[in-house]
Amino acid sequence: MSSNKWYIGIDLGGTSVKMAFIDDEAQIIDKWNIKTDTTNNGENIVKDISESIKTKIEEHQKDKDHIKGIGMGSPGFLEIDEGFVYHSVNIGWKNYPLKDELEKAVGLPVIVDNDANIAAIGEMWKGAGEGAKDVLCVTLGTGVGGGVITDGEIVHGVNGMAGEIGHTTAVLKGGVLCNCGKTGCLETVSSATAIRRMAIEGFKDHPESRLKKKYDKEGDISSKDVLDFAKEQDHLAMAVVKKASFHLGFALANFATVMNPAKIVIGGGVSKAGDTLLDPVKHYFRMYALPRVNEGVEIVAAQLGNDAGIIGAAWLAKTKL
Amino acid sequence: MSSNKWYIGIDLGGTSVKMAFIDDEAQIIDKWNIKTDTTNNGENIVKDISESIKTKIEEHQKDKDHIKGIGMGSPGFLEIDEGFVYHSVNIGWKNYPLKDELEKAVGLPVIVDNDANIAAIGEMWKGAGEGAKDVLCVTLGTGVGGGVITDGEIVHGVNGMAGEIGHTTAVLKGGVLCNCGKTGCLETVSSATAIRRMAIEGFKDHPESRLKKKYDKEGDISSKDVLDFAKEQDHLAMAVVKKASFHLGFALANFATVMNPAKIVIGGGVSKAGDTLLDPVKHYFRMYALPRVNEGVEIVAAQLGNDAGIIGAAWLAKTKL
Repeated sequence: MSSNKWYIGIDLGGTSVKMAFIDDEAQIIDKWNIKTDTTNNGENIVKDISESIKTKIEEHQKDKDHIKGIGMGSPGFLEIDEGFVYHSVNIGWKNYPLKDELEKAVGLPVIVDNDANIAAIGEMWKGAGEGAKDVLCVTLGTGVGGGVITDGEIVHGVNGMAGEIGHTTAVLKGGVLCNCGKTGCLETVSSATAIRRMAIEGFKDHPESRLKKKYDKEGDISSKDVLDFAKEQDHLAMAVVKKASFHLGFALANFATVMNPAKIVIGGGVSKAGDTLLDPVKHYFRMYALPRVNEGVEIVAAQLGNDAGIIGAAWLAKTKL
Repeated sequence: MSSNKWYIGIDLGGTSVKMAFIDDEAQIIDKWNIKTDTTNNGENIVKDISESIKTKIEEHQKDKDHIKGIGMGSPGFLEIDEGFVYHSVNIGWKNYPLKDELEKAVGLPVIVDNDANIAAIGEMWKGAGEGAKDVLCVTLGTGVGGGVITDGEIVHGVNGMAGEIGHTTAVLKGGVLCNCGKTGCLETVSSATAIRRMAIEGFKDHPESRLKKKYDKEGDISSKDVLDFAKEQDHLAMAVVKKASFHLGFALANFATVMNPAKIVIGGGVSKAGDTLLDPVKHYFRMYALPRVNEGVEIVAAQLGNDAGIIGAAWLAKTKL
């Protein structure tokens, strides 16, 4: 069924631009990165992408005709239909017509979506969500990102904000201030950042913790340390993982009761801890989700890692252009 | 643009079957009810509906050709594509091929969906959600029902359970047992049933309340009494409405942060209290929703009342057959 033609998937981040040629069946033909040039409010980024694509097409001794279109994920607030970026803080764009500029520069049709959404779509197409049409994706990293897919389509909402599961309120009273301006967001208790912070906050009650010893010796700890030490039964680390898992499992149970997904895909750096994190999340999920919703859903770790975005972007180009 | 042809909208309930002829523009040509015959596991219902439709078509001196199709809402667990009812407790059906049976009986194409979903779609098409494509509907009655519409389509989820907002967990510890088997569901604090129960529970701390006087005199109070007395500044009634509104506003804020709806439509008996209920719900919603989500959404009372279901059912027939 393959047409043998390729799609280009682009995943724009604050540090690097991930790009790939991807075929009809989600196979990556070639993937590469370039640096994200955020100087001058990101005005060189589209030119850099365009030149890099042209060079790569030549390297593969293909014509531009061999590419059917470009899908691209961008951070920030976007108008999806127009591919217009209202504001992308980490990139520097403000009121930037990304789709139009990239189409002009490369001479191929372009479709743009939010970076969290393309990662979710990637996992649905070829990753942990494969085969499911109703998928909830959560990315646990510096923050907590999310993507919602219903009946095979990304949910954008009325102004492109859908999926902001990280900014739902988890702690009603006395929650930590979040970057969004609210307090007690899920992001303040279940992100990598939160896991590290909650461990450090726990030193006073757990001076015996190996986390404290590591912190005193090396000057810092990471969320990975917390998850590793939890696996080795360090009490503070276990308490922190329990807290992060409780809030995530509870929030997911409530969203799943409203969305009834077939898969919940948990990705991002923290999810690499595997069952250390997934098992307690599943435990709390089952406590709070409606029984029939529970029966219908599988909670799984993301599979595509950093490739989720480029693969999801290619899916957009394949199905929407 | 009207084709002048009609659709039939049917809204099946445990007591009566609401039916209507509805035109292309959602105008009700004629509406009528028949009794729901739940004897013998509901085996007469489809025959009763079919005969009633035939009689009405004759009354209007039309041919069957004048009807383009039938949309029908049913309570219970359904398989939507096949129009198959797994189980509908209040009706008596178990593994009942509703779509097939009704098509055979009437000789017109039929599409079936969940009763809460057709009401949501009705409000989207011609009611309080008019013009919006991303709508969250909540019905506050004996229970708390819900319907989710994204990009103009009903969200069903993997096994037809989507929208069960009433069974998300609102009270983490010490919550009241819910009909679903869990404790602390939103339904146990924000439904009409819950509002009445919480008021009665409050008599011991508020012996001065006019609600208690009414209860002592008349042997019972209703949720409407609570809302009426709250408007008149009765302290117990105000405290109950505050509690119900807090939980509803908080839950809606979290779901809206994930779904980013343009409208949240609040229907059902309790919503007739208007601003007595809507104002505190909006207050708590604004406290907990992400600012941009807040900007995008309007919280409104349902407009169609009992007609929402038949109108939504007709929309299904119009767009899906």
